[in-house]
Amino acid sequence: MSGEPRIGDVFGAMLTDAYAVETGTGTRPLAGGRLPRPVIEIIERDDGLINGAPSAHYFAGPADWQPYDHRAVSRVRGATLDVGVGAGRIALLLQDRGIPVTGLDTSAGALAVCRRRGVRELVHGTVDAHVADGRRYDTFLLLGNNLGLLEGVERGRALLASLAAMARPGAQVIAQGTDPYGTRDPVHTGYHERNRRQGRLGGQLRLRLRYRELGTDWFDYLVCSAGELGTLVEGTPWRLVEVDDADAPYYLALLQLAG
Amino acid sequence: MSGEPRIGDVFGAMLTDAYAVETGTGTRPLAGGRLPRPVIEIIERDDGLINGAPSAHYFAGPADWQPYDHRAVSRVRGATLDVGVGAGRIALLLQDRGIPVTGLDTSAGALAVCRRRGVRELVHGTVDAHVADGRRYDTFLLLGNNLGLLEGVERGRALLASLAAMARPGAQVIAQGTDPYGTRDPVHTGYHERNRRQGRLGGQLRLRLRYRELGTDWFDYLVCSAGELGTLVEGTPWRLVEVDDADAPYYLALLQLAG
Repeated sequence: MSGEPRIGDVFGAMLTDAYAVETGTGTRPLAGGRLPRPVIEIIERDDGLINGAPSAHYFAGPADWQPYDHRAVSRVRGATLDVGVGAGRIALLLQDRGIPVTGLDTSAGALAVCRRRGVRELVHGTVDAHVADGRRYDTFLLLGNNLGLLEGVERGRALLASLAAMARPGAQVIAQGTDPYGTRDPVHTGYHERNRRQGRLGGQLRLRLRYRELGTDWFDYLVCSAGELGTLVEGTPWRLVEVDDADAPYYLALLQLAG
Repeated sequence: MSGEPRIGDVFGAMLTDAYAVETGTGTRPLAGGRLPRPVIEIIERDDGLINGAPSAHYFAGPADWQPYDHRAVSRVRGATLDVGVGAGRIALLLQDRGIPVTGLDTSAGALAVCRRRGVRELVHGTVDAHVADGRRYDTFLLLGNNLGLLEGVERGRALLASLAAMARPGAQVIAQGTDPYGTRDPVHTGYHERNRRQGRLGGQLRLRLRYRELGTDWFDYLVCSAGELGTLVEGTPWRLVEVDDADAPYYLALLQLAG
């Protein structure tokens, strides 16, 4: 045996278990067959770094959100696509406020959890594939650090082009990112330098998720500064019109459709 | 980059960070440079299974212990060697009760945490190496699931021989284990079957620990039934005289020096 995980819907399996723990229903994970086992999201980086984090935050109510999440949702208007809806915490609040919101995720398990929690409009798949569905939106949300879904410069521009293809006139993107460059930890600064030597953005992370016996393939996840984001957005149908970094290193980037 | 960790004192690095979180002193791990990051122990099994668990339990006070821990310490008598002392929770209680206790661990970082928490007698190294120090004990503790340190039949018998070489007449071993065979989860039952086909005990796990950029080498960790333990103990200087499984699948095994 190699220690390699089986490829599968890691995020969905994790949220399914976390939902069972949250609600006290369904099959909850146990340690040694008896004691409840907390659900931990495990993220590996391709330099061998590994981090675990309790998954409960995916189910956090608004009272436990970070301040920038509240500022983000206060800016939402019109038909909204929540890209990477996760367990639906943002979509549920918007729905409660009467905003027509659609949650999109590539994880079937995540969507099943959203459905059980009451999110009504859900789409399974990628942003690119959703373009063909002919839906149009006024707001695109990439919250919960989902600016990372831009992956890198090339893929990020393609994703923003897909969003533009689904955008109504005057549409906006509200994306939450994290500036990775405040650290002096050599584990991170060394990684950033290696990335740049390879022509990648410093915080263009190569990651995979793992949960129990499952793993994802390795994928890129972009953690970039607002300046790097500005450069990426150039040459797309969007303009970076505002960066709210009141909670730095976390920030909200507001893009508006050019034209 | 391969995704492989750097070999190092994983357990010590983790306990050092967890101690900083517990006490609010020292360098605490942060996410994105600002939000506190909980310290998570990550354990990989060689079939690709991975689990994370918050490390706070290493610092739990007696009020938060499992009942079998209390029953174990109530049986301690005389000079005591706490094998795999960890962050010292058991040793600190015994010390408070006036019991002469020595904490042994192969992790230098764990011993540094024990020292800062006030454990007075500490030994860095393996049980086998400690034999040469000429110390003698009345009680050997393998708590916190440390029956696993027996690793397997052959290594377990060698470790029990080393303990016997340090044992005073009438000495005892108090070990806490977990019976792994109550599960119907195919991830585990399949692993047990593969192990047996290879001539290993079903629950003879092949594991490594990971924390941030560090990993251990792969090692064996024995999770066995009380019956399997009984067979292992045969042919050692010890007799399995009692199994307390009131909290099954967790159990306490009491060994006494034969003769």
